[in-house]
Amino acid sequence: MQRIYFDNAATTPLDPEVFKAMLPFFNEKFGNPSSIYSYGRETRMAIENARKTVAKILNAHPSEIFFTSGGTESTNTAINAAVNDLGCKHIISSPLEHHATLHSIEYLAKTGKVKLSYVHILANGQIDYNDLEKLLKESDEKCLVTLMHANNEIGNITDIERVAYLCEKHDAICNIDTVQTVGHFPIDLQKVHVHFINAAAHKIHGPKGVGMLYINKNIKIHPFINGGSQERNMRAGTENIYGIVGFAKALEIAVENMEEESLHIKEVKNYMKESLVKNIPGVHFNGDPEGESLYTVLSVAFPKTEKSDMLLFNLDINNICASGGSACTSGAEAASHVISAISKNPDQTTVRFSFSKYNTKEEVDLVVEKLKKII
Amino acid sequence: MQRIYFDNAATTPLDPEVFKAMLPFFNEKFGNPSSIYSYGRETRMAIENARKTVAKILNAHPSEIFFTSGGTESTNTAINAAVNDLGCKHIISSPLEHHATLHSIEYLAKTGKVKLSYVHILANGQIDYNDLEKLLKESDEKCLVTLMHANNEIGNITDIERVAYLCEKHDAICNIDTVQTVGHFPIDLQKVHVHFINAAAHKIHGPKGVGMLYINKNIKIHPFINGGSQERNMRAGTENIYGIVGFAKALEIAVENMEEESLHIKEVKNYMKESLVKNIPGVHFNGDPEGESLYTVLSVAFPKTEKSDMLLFNLDINNICASGGSACTSGAEAASHVISAISKNPDQTTVRFSFSKYNTKEEVDLVVEKLKKII
Repeated sequence: MQRIYFDNAATTPLDPEVFKAMLPFFNEKFGNPSSIYSYGRETRMAIENARKTVAKILNAHPSEIFFTSGGTESTNTAINAAVNDLGCKHIISSPLEHHATLHSIEYLAKTGKVKLSYVHILANGQIDYNDLEKLLKESDEKCLVTLMHANNEIGNITDIERVAYLCEKHDAICNIDTVQTVGHFPIDLQKVHVHFINAAAHKIHGPKGVGMLYINKNIKIHPFINGGSQERNMRAGTENIYGIVGFAKALEIAVENMEEESLHIKEVKNYMKESLVKNIPGVHFNGDPEGESLYTVLSVAFPKTEKSDMLLFNLDINNICASGGSACTSGAEAASHVISAISKNPDQTTVRFSFSKYNTKEEVDLVVEKLKKII
Repeated sequence: MQRIYFDNAATTPLDPEVFKAMLPFFNEKFGNPSSIYSYGRETRMAIENARKTVAKILNAHPSEIFFTSGGTESTNTAINAAVNDLGCKHIISSPLEHHATLHSIEYLAKTGKVKLSYVHILANGQIDYNDLEKLLKESDEKCLVTLMHANNEIGNITDIERVAYLCEKHDAICNIDTVQTVGHFPIDLQKVHVHFINAAAHKIHGPKGVGMLYINKNIKIHPFINGGSQERNMRAGTENIYGIVGFAKALEIAVENMEEESLHIKEVKNYMKESLVKNIPGVHFNGDPEGESLYTVLSVAFPKTEKSDMLLFNLDINNICASGGSACTSGAEAASHVISAISKNPDQTTVRFSFSKYNTKEEVDLVVEKLKKII
């Protein structure tokens, strides 16, 4: 039975072109990039070229780009730096953030270092910008605003220019979790004045175990991981050279083909949405799929029945990969904090289908056919 | 000109067998290990098997083994946990530690969280165990003792059973930086009662960007990197599946052939030592090469002359890879803190030659021949 992979918000298959770019560093080019001999300089050069590629795409300066072990480490770095180095004593976030954010800020609040506020969320899952401004205006402490560009479970997109503008106006530090949008949407850091953004290669057909943190050149922070002088003293540890090269290549490919691929993926998503409405009675969609939403994510609410309870299990039996929510929490099998925060109806079974350039309408047909049989 | 790689303490070439084990996870097996469908469970299973392999080799329980992005992150995790979660207010370390340790503990001291003491170092670079006991005995705070098993620059080996015994006796937390010894020396965690040890795959012919932290089951700590529930809620972030599989394979191979390979490498090291004494007047060796020392590392002190100043540069021109000290700091081109701490003679040029299973006596002959010409 052919496998259908509709879980691209969790992770994506590695692009063969990306793997090809990584390959030389697994065998002949293995020198430590920090070594002073030419053999080490060769890998160092590859890292610096990767940095330039990423910087150019995001319209940032290479000195503002730092490679990390992934989106989660990047988020942890930004949030901790805002509190420990930039004087933030009040964190404003949302209940819909990824656990990398939520668990970091909750821990900081627990240790008494910061006060936490959560911005009000509208019925469609979008953040209430008036409430955000109110929170910023009324705060008597230096604030960190940490919000995601796009929600990984329901796909809602936040207007980050507006968030950045409000932060600038109220002298707040602004961290945007762009893990679901870097490589999928154009991001111009000369237009959006934020302090931090992050990315993870494996969300854009790059390798797992590598990510990126943008740190605006106007701020100075202490490293989160202390040690050697790698990454210009900002992230210690021998560089994951294959990962870094793979990350830059994946981003390069994603941006090169963004227009064409986003149209294709949007078509697949909309086709699935329409097909579900036609074929599954009572189905509806979480978030704001008609409004500002990731073209890669469709969060479907199936009416709760005996059969829908076993939906993910039955999809799995049919070799269809989809998830209940974020992969990072699905191991725990707890209810999604995102769906709980926005849903008026607890009587639903949520399945997130998420798409990539490799998916097709034919796959959608097969999945909807199976869903009809399962439900 | 054939390249001679004598910098294996910085990083090692990837073993082709290790790469072979990693390969399937770059293409067909890309599922997110946290996903609940069978396709994700497949990669999760690979991670859990890797954990079992590592645990068995170290004689630990699989639940005590956590995969990280490398030795530096592991060290940061252990040290911060000792202070933030285990109540340590006094850190006892040595001036010869890797920067991953030194910069972490210095930062904690700077923020006022801990008091720092450095154990006295003997002339041969070995730590003074009597001073260590004195420091522990006289401390009126809970202590963290953080010492390296083997020094990455001069090769000195610390008696970690003795350190662990002293820590146990004085109720201190014990973190041993085993980055240079895991896979090179047998480590039995049922015999040596420490709280943390670490490892980095790329030091034992495994991939860069992945490491391990052992956390003794008798202690409970909070994650250093917060977020998803990966690594049983102890290290958030989508798992570097290729890296983890590669790490376990590299360790497996290292241990399988440890006896035979260590004999071979020891022979190469001793051959180089003797050959240098015979051929380079005034040469001597840093640390304790006749005593307890890494068989992989030979730290050579050449008499300072006009020519020896350019030694590393000239070795590089001759396609010989060696380093002045730790790779992690060589980018900074600062004098080695290790050599400064032990050397009675500032008038020396230090070169660290470090060996692996792939090196030969023929390579030593070529290098010594070149050195004779250079000096």
